[in-house]
Amino acid sequence: MATAETVRVIFRPAGRSARVPKGTLLTAAANQIGVPIEQVCGGKGTCGKCKVRLLSGTLSPVGPAESRHLSSDELAAGYRLACQAAALSDVSVEVAWASAAAGVSILVEGLLEPMPLEPIVEKMVVQVPRASLEDQVGDYEALLRVLPPSAGQPPRPSLSTLRELPAAVRAADGLVTVVHADGLLVSVEQGDTRDALYGFACDIGTTTVVGYLLDLNTGKRLSVASTLNPQTRFGDDVVSRIEVAQRSAEGLESLRQTIVEAINDLIGQACAEAGVPRERIHALSIVGNTCMHHLFLGLSPAALGRSPYVPVVAGPLQLDAIEAGLRAHPSAQLFVLPNIAGFVGADTVGVLLATRLLHKEGVRLAIDIGTNGEMALGSRERMVACSTAAGPAFEGAQLTHGMRAADGAIDHVDLGEDGQIQVHSIGRGKVRGICGSGAVDAIAGLRRLGIIDATGRLLSREEVGTLRGDHLAERIVPHAHGGAFVLVPAEQTAIGGPVLLTQRDIRQIQLAKGAIRAGIEILMAELGVGPEDVVEVCLAGAFGNYIRPESALTIGLIPRFPRAPIVPVGNAAGAGAQMVLLSRQAWREAATITGQVEYVELSLRRDFQQVFMQAMEME
Amino acid sequence: MATAETVRVIFRPAGRSARVPKGTLLTAAANQIGVPIEQVCGGKGTCGKCKVRLLSGTLSPVGPAESRHLSSDELAAGYRLACQAAALSDVSVEVAWASAAAGVSILVEGLLEPMPLEPIVEKMVVQVPRASLEDQVGDYEALLRVLPPSAGQPPRPSLSTLRELPAAVRAADGLVTVVHADGLLVSVEQGDTRDALYGFACDIGTTTVVGYLLDLNTGKRLSVASTLNPQTRFGDDVVSRIEVAQRSAEGLESLRQTIVEAINDLIGQACAEAGVPRERIHALSIVGNTCMHHLFLGLSPAALGRSPYVPVVAGPLQLDAIEAGLRAHPSAQLFVLPNIAGFVGADTVGVLLATRLLHKEGVRLAIDIGTNGEMALGSRERMVACSTAAGPAFEGAQLTHGMRAADGAIDHVDLGEDGQIQVHSIGRGKVRGICGSGAVDAIAGLRRLGIIDATGRLLSREEVGTLRGDHLAERIVPHAHGGAFVLVPAEQTAIGGPVLLTQRDIRQIQLAKGAIRAGIEILMAELGVGPEDVVEVCLAGAFGNYIRPESALTIGLIPRFPRAPIVPVGNAAGAGAQMVLLSRQAWREAATITGQVEYVELSLRRDFQQVFMQAMEME
Repeated sequence: MATAETVRVIFRPAGRSARVPKGTLLTAAANQIGVPIEQVCGGKGTCGKCKVRLLSGTLSPVGPAESRHLSSDELAAGYRLACQAAALSDVSVEVAWASAAAGVSILVEGLLEPMPLEPIVEKMVVQVPRASLEDQVGDYEALLRVLPPSAGQPPRPSLSTLRELPAAVRAADGLVTVVHADGLLVSVEQGDTRDALYGFACDIGTTTVVGYLLDLNTGKRLSVASTLNPQTRFGDDVVSRIEVAQRSAEGLESLRQTIVEAINDLIGQACAEAGVPRERIHALSIVGNTCMHHLFLGLSPAALGRSPYVPVVAGPLQLDAIEAGLRAHPSAQLFVLPNIAGFVGADTVGVLLATRLLHKEGVRLAIDIGTNGEMALGSRERMVACSTAAGPAFEGAQLTHGMRAADGAIDHVDLGEDGQIQVHSIGRGKVRGICGSGAVDAIAGLRRLGIIDATGRLLSREEVGTLRGDHLAERIVPHAHGGAFVLVPAEQTAIGGPVLLTQRDIRQIQLAKGAIRAGIEILMAELGVGPEDVVEVCLAGAFGNYIRPESALTIGLIPRFPRAPIVPVGNAAGAGAQMVLLSRQAWREAATITGQVEYVELSLRRDFQQVFMQAMEME
Repeated sequence: MATAETVRVIFRPAGRSARVPKGTLLTAAANQIGVPIEQVCGGKGTCGKCKVRLLSGTLSPVGPAESRHLSSDELAAGYRLACQAAALSDVSVEVAWASAAAGVSILVEGLLEPMPLEPIVEKMVVQVPRASLEDQVGDYEALLRVLPPSAGQPPRPSLSTLRELPAAVRAADGLVTVVHADGLLVSVEQGDTRDALYGFACDIGTTTVVGYLLDLNTGKRLSVASTLNPQTRFGDDVVSRIEVAQRSAEGLESLRQTIVEAINDLIGQACAEAGVPRERIHALSIVGNTCMHHLFLGLSPAALGRSPYVPVVAGPLQLDAIEAGLRAHPSAQLFVLPNIAGFVGADTVGVLLATRLLHKEGVRLAIDIGTNGEMALGSRERMVACSTAAGPAFEGAQLTHGMRAADGAIDHVDLGEDGQIQVHSIGRGKVRGICGSGAVDAIAGLRRLGIIDATGRLLSREEVGTLRGDHLAERIVPHAHGGAFVLVPAEQTAIGGPVLLTQRDIRQIQLAKGAIRAGIEILMAELGVGPEDVVEVCLAGAFGNYIRPESALTIGLIPRFPRAPIVPVGNAAGAGAQMVLLSRQAWREAATITGQVEYVELSLRRDFQQVFMQAMEME
């Protein structure tokens, strides 16, 4: 069999190329490799939108449609209509990018470098030809005629798209805006609605749920809404919710409905604030730890709760949002980020997406500290990850006067060499307790003054008196929890007594930081790197934002990496969720992250107990 | 780049072949081209189910798993395990077909020749490996490991499948039955449930809705349920329902809900009769005329009702049944047959599927007579189709004593040369009226005796007396509708008067048959064939089953084709719906029928009026 002669068509500035039979139209070559060229008229040569400029090579002679739509100056400069010009040799053409999104870069909180904006749902304006008695084409088939072919298959229409279709194609004289995502026809709207393209990204935390309404045309965040995860009424931590879900199908269903309703409320709030009808949201994304992921989807988390701690599904999911119970456009698509393992969930995938550690040279560490500490260490060469049960101490729970980072909470403590104590609390009211970052600061300060020793023991009043004098020794008071240090005297608090840091509190923080530190040490051992090899530490999450790097180092939460700055990256998990809506590339990357990251199961490490004991120590 | 040496693997008896790198396992070669080989253990060599026999060529040496599972006699005869044996040269192997469906042919009512049974949903038993701390694979990912790869892409899981998954893989020690359809994972059931594989096919008629519950393993029909289309309370015919739907969105939604509920009831009835839980139905199919199709899916039929009479969608649709409101397994797939044009709907596609006219040499005619007459004429070379508004006369409506083909309806009339009249009615009670086939018989008989002339005029009592004597002349009575013929005298009826055939009745039947006949004549002209070219006439639908071919010829409903037998094919539309469930090939064919059939719009034919006038005449 003789093969047809082929030529190569290179599209600038993207630089992508297609090999096609000689004589192929440029639009067909572009469609073959997915290079977006605007074709409002469906390739009839009547809209003039598919203008390109010939850089090198030979195209077919200029035709009548091109003479009509291009000025003589344009023709002289090499401009052509891609739907009319065929490649007769290897050619290079420059595409005049017309898409609203083209060339825009985005930077969301937690994202360390800008990415090209390339939303996961796209809008395209086409002119649907009218049917006639001579050509009784169905509405959907008429639309297909003017849609650029996508990988051979016509786009799959959702039922709601078909329901919208007859009115849409008859309203604005056949001019419609097609909303599509990955081969699915999500919606058809009458007229040109490209200005309106919205997405909603949601980060389901064990404690807090945050939703971001995004303008997908600009990458701008229009509004943010957050709420306490109402599942907390079933239990504060992951384990107690797993128990509820495991006990009965109704328990699981209640947990599912609770979070779905909360997210629907957040969608409503965020939309109201931005003045966007929720029906205009065509894409949604979800991140969360593996348990939150499962409860949201109504998947049993039972197997997460017992060895070998496996999820129902790790891979990424694209669903109809309505199938998961979310209320937006009836055919809106929901993108659920993948999990890495039972306790390294989609939230960590979000962190890795946002920090792009998998694309970088040089070993970097990302830590997301919550009730569980999830961490990943590595580079584009190799990435290992693990999860450790830090417990809720860093969130302020289980401390004698612990509380969340809310009004009245001590969030920073400065202990000077002279024994001066400066306490900073959140809000304007009197002090009510201490949150995680405050406790870490206090312990670090006391450690620097020697009032806590390297094993975590709080010195007695006598010892402190000898070491630092009466001024500080007076702060040491007896307490059932093994003695305590008075952070704020009774008369300055709102709780009718002093705010204390007890010996037990110190142990709790030690246990929590020991777990995290042990995870880091084991990941370093697993990867075979030393402290000098690490070039960056990304601290994700609220605690990561509040904590002072120096204090974290002093208590030994993080090893001293001589070359690595500590960079708080904010809610990187939420940033990852936003990124998959703003960038198809990010979604494709998310799908591969699960396979690229090696999960390290700490319970399999014989050395874990020893490393953990060591990790409890302070500098 | 050096290319690996490839070899060809031929699978008998199917005769399909795969080209693969030398050293490829036979199971991998089979998976590549979709040849089904049972692999319960997922290719570990532990189940022994993938037995094949080497016919020619060289395989890798017999391994330990094969020695364990194959007797020395089997080994001597060339038996091997496909999951252990690799092709070292071009080989030909015989597959021991283990699938329950393999090799079975099916013949449903309306289907003229048997087709191989190859259900559109399939079940496959696999052994899902257990996760361990060393290998914390998610349930879904563990399942993927043992599923044969389908065209490179892992099957898409439905959310309900993921919800079923954790319990299913833990119940029967990892042995599960996977239900899949076209790359979609519809369900995962614990243990081996291959015995239970059910489908429900539904034919939505304007007047009657029929549902068929099928055992997809055997092709057997387990039960049939039918009901009047409850949409009739919105109007008897298509046009009045289009008006209701057009008037308001609520009207369309009421029509949609009405038919969806009716079908859900039919599913319930059919399942109860057969003792099959509706949740075990994994596949459903729908045929109907274009309007019924649209109303069922909630698509506006407004454009069907005015020129240029276009549908919202013509092509085939695969949907989640639940999206259309049908209650079966939560992830059951719904296959909606395509439409050809605004008035040649999925029902005609069903008729063409069942009669397989598009696969045959020789011009054949298929007619489905209802309120609209839809007909197709042609062969594998070319097929033309049209629709004519016959009106409801053939269904007994609009006749003076017309009624449906129910108890008390005259369905057959014999008029002897001697003037003897024999009337047959349905059921045991007294005569109450006449249905379509009875009226056609009566008119044909009267025409043969000359009592009706070729223009359709009923002779006067005097004329009949002269022609046939007093015995028949007495039957001619005066009537406001232009005179009448007494079919059954008053004393023999249940209606307190005689059952008559009036001059107006004759005109109504003439109009109806004229429309059908004109359609046939125009299709013949369009195709350029004469009566002698037609080799078969397929009469579909209830009326087609009741009507006597000779009477249809006498009144000129159908031309006399010298070579064509008239074959009643029953509810061929319903048969087509059943076929797509029983045969993937039928579903693929359905998708192409729309493009293969040329629709002839009668209103564009200038000669239509003339042909129609001529078609009113009788022999």
